[in-house]
Amino acid sequence: MTGQSSGESPIFGDDFRTIFSDLIAWRRDVRHFRTDPIPPEVIADCLALADLAPSVGNSQPWRWINVSQPDLRAKVKAAFTEANNAAAKIYDGDQAALYARLKLEGIDAAPVQFAVFCEESCPQGNGLGRQTMPEMLRYSTVCSIHTFWLAARARGIGMGWISIVDPAAITETFGVPSSWTLIGYLCVGYPAEDHIVPELERRHWQHRTPNEERFRKQAFK
Amino acid sequence: MTGQSSGESPIFGDDFRTIFSDLIAWRRDVRHFRTDPIPPEVIADCLALADLAPSVGNSQPWRWINVSQPDLRAKVKAAFTEANNAAAKIYDGDQAALYARLKLEGIDAAPVQFAVFCEESCPQGNGLGRQTMPEMLRYSTVCSIHTFWLAARARGIGMGWISIVDPAAITETFGVPSSWTLIGYLCVGYPAEDHIVPELERRHWQHRTPNEERFRKQAFK
Repeated sequence: MTGQSSGESPIFGDDFRTIFSDLIAWRRDVRHFRTDPIPPEVIADCLALADLAPSVGNSQPWRWINVSQPDLRAKVKAAFTEANNAAAKIYDGDQAALYARLKLEGIDAAPVQFAVFCEESCPQGNGLGRQTMPEMLRYSTVCSIHTFWLAARARGIGMGWISIVDPAAITETFGVPSSWTLIGYLCVGYPAEDHIVPELERRHWQHRTPNEERFRKQAFK
Repeated sequence: MTGQSSGESPIFGDDFRTIFSDLIAWRRDVRHFRTDPIPPEVIADCLALADLAPSVGNSQPWRWINVSQPDLRAKVKAAFTEANNAAAKIYDGDQAALYARLKLEGIDAAPVQFAVFCEESCPQGNGLGRQTMPEMLRYSTVCSIHTFWLAARARGIGMGWISIVDPAAITETFGVPSSWTLIGYLCVGYPAEDHIVPELERRHWQHRTPNEERFRKQAFK
């Protein structure tokens, strides 16, 4: 094992990289949680790492709300149910039946939940790097969520990212400033099971595909 | 060191987590590169991990173009220069002088460069999870870039994410389908120096700030 947390630049070794690859391969979007509580200091450690995520102009535009109140969770669950019922209607036949059987959220069981927003009018960073691509603030917030996700998985904790909600319903539920954009609603807890294969693949909704189409050596012209 | 890359669920240990924290803390947005080539198999390893990033509905919407042709790199550099000159005009006085001294790209030196797009009309995933938040496709692509970034850093390789370009100029340069959205232009190479402090902080553009504003225990109402 090489590397250190002191002031010197760490040199990462093969053994670290092997386990890091495991972390990437075994990260899942979790929807089946155990209800065991997570020690607050463990969540705090994950949030401290999430706060080190890359951000455009060093703007740190992410805004995390720890959602513990049952009434707020119930409102999010209702927003999910409404959006999910509407989403189900775009499918027919076998695909509709399969969609109806998928579990796409873990709001009832996950002991820790976050609503994560992006502050679009964030003064920090002085606008650097976001004149032509203001969406970089949202992308920075995604990096913060992804860092939390990996940090949690490294502690045996799973995360599920809920996007089947009307963002307006969530911003209204939490009464956030109008300049805040919902990026994701996160369910966090110990997973009921670990899997290297995504649940959507195990349930034959969507398999991963060969990557030739995704990585090209040439421009189109 | 615990964990394994076999079929069994890995258990990540304290030693792994310590080095993972170093990885997060020492990841930087790099603009000063050495020109030494990177072995293609090392880049391939990083891309293979990037392809395991979370994606909405298992859609894998990221599209990476490896940009090696000098004429294409020159066009990207020109697009950067134009956007950067326009961006510089929003600052006055000392801030304008400071902005003018910042190095915000590494196109001339970085041995490996990628233009990364999101396929907005991606059929893979069958639309799951993106009816109310179609931007989840773009967020998935960000997770792919962030995974590459960390995988590269674990190999001593730096990455810089360029967002100071008109996205239309880049999509035109590469002749990509109209359904592709530019997410970032990436410069990749061995960094001239390693730093735990971001360059924008070292150059007094923007320091990180205390995180009380970013992490809340309560909704606003």
